[in-house]
Amino acid sequence: MKKENLRPIFWEKEGLKLLDQRQIPGKKEWFTAQNSEDAIFAIKEMVVRGAPAIAITGLFGAVLELKKFSKKPDYQEFQTILSKILESRPTAVNLRRAFEELSSIFPKEEYDKVSLSELQQKSEEFAIHVFEEDIRNNLALAKNGVGLFPSSPSKLKIITHCNTGALATAGHGTALGVIRSLKEAGHDLTVYADETRPYLQGARLTAWELMEEGIENYLITDSMAGWLMSSQKIDAVIVGVDRVAANGDSANKIGTYPLAVLAKHHGIPFYIAATEKSFDFKITDGSQIPIEMRTQDEVTRLNFLKNEKGEAILSEGVIAPVGVKALNPSFDVTPANLIKAFITEKGIVPPDKIKEFFG
Amino acid sequence: MKKENLRPIFWEKEGLKLLDQRQIPGKKEWFTAQNSEDAIFAIKEMVVRGAPAIAITGLFGAVLELKKFSKKPDYQEFQTILSKILESRPTAVNLRRAFEELSSIFPKEEYDKVSLSELQQKSEEFAIHVFEEDIRNNLALAKNGVGLFPSSPSKLKIITHCNTGALATAGHGTALGVIRSLKEAGHDLTVYADETRPYLQGARLTAWELMEEGIENYLITDSMAGWLMSSQKIDAVIVGVDRVAANGDSANKIGTYPLAVLAKHHGIPFYIAATEKSFDFKITDGSQIPIEMRTQDEVTRLNFLKNEKGEAILSEGVIAPVGVKALNPSFDVTPANLIKAFITEKGIVPPDKIKEFFG
Repeated sequence: MKKENLRPIFWEKEGLKLLDQRQIPGKKEWFTAQNSEDAIFAIKEMVVRGAPAIAITGLFGAVLELKKFSKKPDYQEFQTILSKILESRPTAVNLRRAFEELSSIFPKEEYDKVSLSELQQKSEEFAIHVFEEDIRNNLALAKNGVGLFPSSPSKLKIITHCNTGALATAGHGTALGVIRSLKEAGHDLTVYADETRPYLQGARLTAWELMEEGIENYLITDSMAGWLMSSQKIDAVIVGVDRVAANGDSANKIGTYPLAVLAKHHGIPFYIAATEKSFDFKITDGSQIPIEMRTQDEVTRLNFLKNEKGEAILSEGVIAPVGVKALNPSFDVTPANLIKAFITEKGIVPPDKIKEFFG
Repeated sequence: MKKENLRPIFWEKEGLKLLDQRQIPGKKEWFTAQNSEDAIFAIKEMVVRGAPAIAITGLFGAVLELKKFSKKPDYQEFQTILSKILESRPTAVNLRRAFEELSSIFPKEEYDKVSLSELQQKSEEFAIHVFEEDIRNNLALAKNGVGLFPSSPSKLKIITHCNTGALATAGHGTALGVIRSLKEAGHDLTVYADETRPYLQGARLTAWELMEEGIENYLITDSMAGWLMSSQKIDAVIVGVDRVAANGDSANKIGTYPLAVLAKHHGIPFYIAATEKSFDFKITDGSQIPIEMRTQDEVTRLNFLKNEKGEAILSEGVIAPVGVKALNPSFDVTPANLIKAFITEKGIVPPDKIKEFFG
C-alpha cells in the first residue's frame, strides 16, 4: 500500500496547519495559524519556507484575518491587512504577486459593491486555487521529469542540492518532486543529497523528506559531489531554481553552479526543475540577477539550528575564529550552456527555447 | 617589526611543547609531553595533527622515554618503545618511516656496542634533525612558490583548502607556507579559505592561522569557490597533498578535486605544494590510492567540536535526521591533467616531469 505523500500545509476549520520546519529533523510537529499574526510569525520565524509555501501561508493569513470581521472592512483596512503580511518577507516575489492578484479581484472602484461574505468567500477561493494549482503544477512537472528516464524500472543514481521538496512548496516539490515521482514509477532509485552549506537545507530537510518517503538516500557534504561523479555512474543532477533569466542563466542556492560545472566535466545531464513562475523574461541574463549577501553568522556559527525542544542550540557554537570575516552569497548563477534542459509543468525545455516556449 | 612566526612545536627542557589544536580557534593553549604516554595521548587525541607534526611528536616521545632510563634498555625494550608509539596512529606513514630511520641508526648487531648516553643523544639529535629539516624544506618550498608570482608587490587573490599550515607541520607549512611567504614578500594578499567540510580544518585552523599572521582572509563554505571564481579575478588555487602517484595524480582532502575542476573551467592555475616525502612512485596512478571512508558522524553531527573549555559542544547537535546514511570519504583524487605544477622544496615541477625530477 502506497505511503501517504508528505504534505506540509493543510487548510482546515481550525486554521492553516503548517509542518513546523524549525523542528525538522528533530521531530514532526504542527503549527496552526489562526489569524494573520500567526501567519506573519510563521513566515518570519521560518516555521514555513520556500517561495510557493510562503505565498500560500500569506494568502490564508489574509483569509483568516478577513473571517474575523463581522462588518466589512473598508478598502484601506483591506489593503492594510495585505501590506502587514507582506512586510513579514518583503523580498518574497511570489507573495507579492499573489496579493496583487487577490487585490485585482476587488478593484478599488468596485470594492463597495462587494459584501463581506463575498470578500471572505472569494478570498478563500483564491487562496485555495493558488494552493491547489501549486500542487497540480508540481505533479505535472514531475511527470514530465519522469519522462526523461527509461520507462522500464531502472537503477538510477541522482544528485540533488538544497531543498526543493514538499517542504518548500504546497506539496510534492519541484526537483525533489521529480525524484518522488521516479520512485513512484518503480525505479530502483538512489539519491545523494548535498548538505547545502551554510544553511544545511539538504541535511536537515531533503534527507528527512527522502527518509520519510522511504527513498534510498545518502547525505554528502557539498565537497563530495566531485568524488561521487568520478567514482560511480551518476545518471543525472536535478536541482530547483530561484530565478531564470531570458537567456536561460539560472540563479539558485549557492553551490549549484559548481555542481553544474562538475556535471559537464563528467558528461552527466544537469536539469533544473522549475514552474513557469520562476522564469523572469524581464531579466536578459544572469549578470542582472542580484546576489543577496546574507549574514556571516551562517558560515561561522551554527546557532540557528534548533534542538528537539525548538531552542537554538550551539548558541556558543562558533566553528571559526571569533572575528573572522566570512562571505555568504545566498545564490550563484549557472550559465545556460551548463543546463541540459528545464523540467517544467508544461514540458521539457532546453535553455535556448524558453522564450518561444513560454512567450 | 616582523611578527614572530607561528610555531606549533617546541623542544624544551621540560619536554615537547605542543600548541593544543583541540582548543583552536577557542584559545591558544600549550600541551607539554614529558614522556611517551603524553606523546601517544597528543597524537591519539588530536592535540597535534598533520603527517610531519605527528612524526616529530612520535620521535620526541621516544627520546623522552629513553631519557628516563638510568640503565640502557635492551634492544627488545628499545623496539617496544617505538612500536607502542606507532600504535597511536598505525596509518601515519611519516611516523613509520621516521622510526625505521631511527632504528637504522642502531642496527641490532651493533646495538650492544652503543652506550645509554649515546642512545639517548643520537636519538635526540635525529629527532631534532627531522624537526629542523621539515621547517627547512617548507621554507625552501615556500620560496619556490613565491617565484611563481610577480617579483614586484602585487594584488593577489588565492584560494586554499583544508589546513596545510604551521599547524600541520613543524612550522611554516606547505600550501599555507607559500601564502605566508607571499605576504612576507610584500604582496597585497587576499586569501579565501574553504571551511573544508566535514572536519572544518579550514574554518577552525586555516582561518585562525591567517588571522594570527595578519593576512587578509575570508572564510567561505566549500560550495562558494565557484561563485568566487566567476565573480572576481582569482590568481591561483594552492593546496597541499596527502600522496602523489608516479603519474602525478594526487590524493588530497575531500573537496580538492572539485576545486581543481573549477580552476580549469575558469583558467586559474591550480598548484599543489608538497615536499618530496609526499611523492610515492610505487603507486603508478590515482586509481591505486585507497580512499579511507571515515565515520558518518563527522557529516551528520558536530559533536567533535570543542568549546572554549575544551569540552565537546553540540553533543546533541545532530544536523541531519537521526539514522540518515552519510558518506564520508576523507580524500579525493585530482588527476594530473588538472594540476599546473607541484611546488616542492627542490623546485617547481609539472606533473609529467616528477619522475625524472626526483628519480
